[in-house]
Amino acid sequence: MTQKLTAKPIIKQIYSNLIFEIEKFHLSPKLVIIIIGDDPASLYYIQNLEKKGNKVGIAVETKKLPASISMKILLNEIERLNKDGTVHGIMIQKPLPSHINESEIIMKLDPKKDMDAFHPLNIGNLVLNKEGFVPCTPAAVLEILSFYNIATEGKNIVIIGRSNIVGKPLANLLLRKSKTGNATVTICHSKTSNLKNVTRKADILIAAIGKALFVHSDMIKYNAIIIDVGVNQVEDAEKGYKYVGDVDYENCFEKASAITPVPGGVGSVTTAMLLKNVLIACKNLS
Amino acid sequence: MTQKLTAKPIIKQIYSNLIFEIEKFHLSPKLVIIIIGDDPASLYYIQNLEKKGNKVGIAVETKKLPASISMKILLNEIERLNKDGTVHGIMIQKPLPSHINESEIIMKLDPKKDMDAFHPLNIGNLVLNKEGFVPCTPAAVLEILSFYNIATEGKNIVIIGRSNIVGKPLANLLLRKSKTGNATVTICHSKTSNLKNVTRKADILIAAIGKALFVHSDMIKYNAIIIDVGVNQVEDAEKGYKYVGDVDYENCFEKASAITPVPGGVGSVTTAMLLKNVLIACKNLS
Repeated sequence: MTQKLTAKPIIKQIYSNLIFEIEKFHLSPKLVIIIIGDDPASLYYIQNLEKKGNKVGIAVETKKLPASISMKILLNEIERLNKDGTVHGIMIQKPLPSHINESEIIMKLDPKKDMDAFHPLNIGNLVLNKEGFVPCTPAAVLEILSFYNIATEGKNIVIIGRSNIVGKPLANLLLRKSKTGNATVTICHSKTSNLKNVTRKADILIAAIGKALFVHSDMIKYNAIIIDVGVNQVEDAEKGYKYVGDVDYENCFEKASAITPVPGGVGSVTTAMLLKNVLIACKNLS
Repeated sequence: MTQKLTAKPIIKQIYSNLIFEIEKFHLSPKLVIIIIGDDPASLYYIQNLEKKGNKVGIAVETKKLPASISMKILLNEIERLNKDGTVHGIMIQKPLPSHINESEIIMKLDPKKDMDAFHPLNIGNLVLNKEGFVPCTPAAVLEILSFYNIATEGKNIVIIGRSNIVGKPLANLLLRKSKTGNATVTICHSKTSNLKNVTRKADILIAAIGKALFVHSDMIKYNAIIIDVGVNQVEDAEKGYKYVGDVDYENCFEKASAITPVPGGVGSVTTAMLLKNVLIACKNLS
């Protein structure tokens, strides 16, 4: 019987812990999200985040800036938030207008308030196994593996996707000498020859390519554990659109021994990990 | 016929380029090596480096400090070198006495003068494909692949070893969208189950585990390309001791299509990459 690795019980546990710790230590953690322009999906995401933050006692403030904002003003705004002692986490929502230099903005962020952990110092610390923030999506994958007691030591883990925010940090984390590490890690991508040959050897397959329903049952081995990081918007006859993963869930379900659904899988845990990062930042800065 | 991937022609080219650039731009690059205590192997290595530096026009200065030095004095010394405009590169020679906190020292180093590229900011920049220094051994491996026109795109590259200074940065580099990147990369280590099964699938096998003569011909596939990062001191009946790699060279030679020797392979190119880093630092800081 295939196990459905749902986010629900994980989130419940994380949110309970957050509430407990925030009350116990009388903390007032605060996250500021900078959003530039009016992307409707972003606004929806942030509203949702505000609600979740309020539930656990984390203030989520949205700083809406016009799409025409200059780099100079934006950098000043980040500098102001870096210095603001009541702000513990800063997140810059994407997409960004084309005139905004993302790299320069990230470098301006105080690494101690960098909730996405995109600053090179945080990525470097992650690789070197030093203290620092872990990007939320890779952190969510580890959280799922840990919660469901999925052993990684000595396992062949194949990651499809080499992005800076998922594939690469995740590979480095899975190599760590830790409970969710010690795996033999392979990273595949668009240039991999004979992808199927590689993915079929995975004890644990992690799909993070951003291509809807890309992984089919012929790409996985029997009893593989499938972690689906993808969230792709596709057309839907009834609702107009819906979200699906990088994995064809229905098609792979029977063959896998365990699989994360989309929605209700990695994405939902990712949001919880973001709020957890805010609490960590608050404790570090207090 | 197996190709011997020797360092000699590579080093010759790198050193010619260094001489050419240093003369052309009237540069006076300077590397300071901090050595704490009296490790004879370190002293020998540094003497050798001084000679090579002098040949190409890079001043190599050794700062010998007593094994009893306090962290405070050492950190002050690093701070002084960070501020010294005539110093472009700083390297801290290992081994370090047990009371010295390596991590704290590395964090004190100006990342712009961090010749080993061990600072988390340099490692983060490497992962994110941003400008910064690349650790010398991984850089040497890429240099060998590039010099001998070994294509990496879509190839299965297996790295044995997950160290912070070789395995992990090298994996991240081989994933880059570049001439020496775009590979499907697998990282193995002491916890890998059935190591042979993994290494036998490698088109390019990179050994970086620090175990003398660990890789035998039954671990490689026919016509594999073998890059040996190891330098291990072993007993020798005639000379007392000698250096061998992580790969049993004699044993693997016939089966491989190309292989790096030890000595005269990766290690020799590594020294050249260090001096190249000093020139880059000098240009950046001038």
